Amino acid sequence: MDALEIVLLYDYYGNLLTERQRECFEMRYYQDLSLGEIGELLKISRQGVHDNLIRTEALLRNMEAKTGCVGRDQACRKAVRSIVSAAQALQKYEDPAVSALAEEILSQAKGLEE
Amino acid sequence: MDALEIVLLYDYYGNLLTERQRECFEMRYYQDLSLGEIGELLKISRQGVHDNLIRTEALLRNMEAKTGCVGRDQACRKAVRSIVSAAQALQKYEDPAVSALAEEILSQAKGLEE
Repeated sequence: MDALEIVLLYDYYGNLLTERQRECFEMRYYQDLSLGEIGELLKISRQGVHDNLIRTEALLRNMEAKTGCVGRDQACRKAVRSIVSAAQALQKYEDPAVSALAEEILSQAKGLEE
Repeated sequence: MDALEIVLLYDYYGNLLTERQRECFEMRYYQDLSLGEIGELLKISRQGVHDNLIRTEALLRNMEAKTGCVGRDQACRKAVRSIVSAAQALQKYEDPAVSALAEEILSQAKGLEE
């Protein structure tokens, strides 16, 4: 299981999970606690923590499989990065019409970056 | 309630609904059937159809409130349209370096349009 990938899915879909699922997930992936430590804090068994995390991961993957939101947004961000670098190169041209259009492209592209 | 908005949300999140919710929703919004007609087809009461649709709409709105996927994707599409028209204007410049950069921007932007 790829931790980076699952954390990315959580960034998008985490708010659709239950509070208990979010607690478990964040203790595991953000605070890097062991299953035993999480179980003690939440007063559930180590196995319960494990099952909760497995279920959360399946839910997150299912949401992405069914909506594709993360893939689409990541593709958008990647294209925006390429667009920004091409537009920055265009900004350097002395022709004021070219640099004005480059500015317009940059301002649209930068509006998409957070 | 804005039908266009709810159909847009359904386009993104519809696959996360149950099959029965999708049936009701599509009969109402895609086939434009009345609550009574849907009830007859699904063998449930008119009130049952109404409640199902209200619940579906609440679910769709909740998914958007909690993830923001549709808003983000719509903002991306809008920016891409502006970027495409600016890049098309740049393509017309005779300087080959300018039109090559414009081509690069266009190919990135068009990759985001479906």
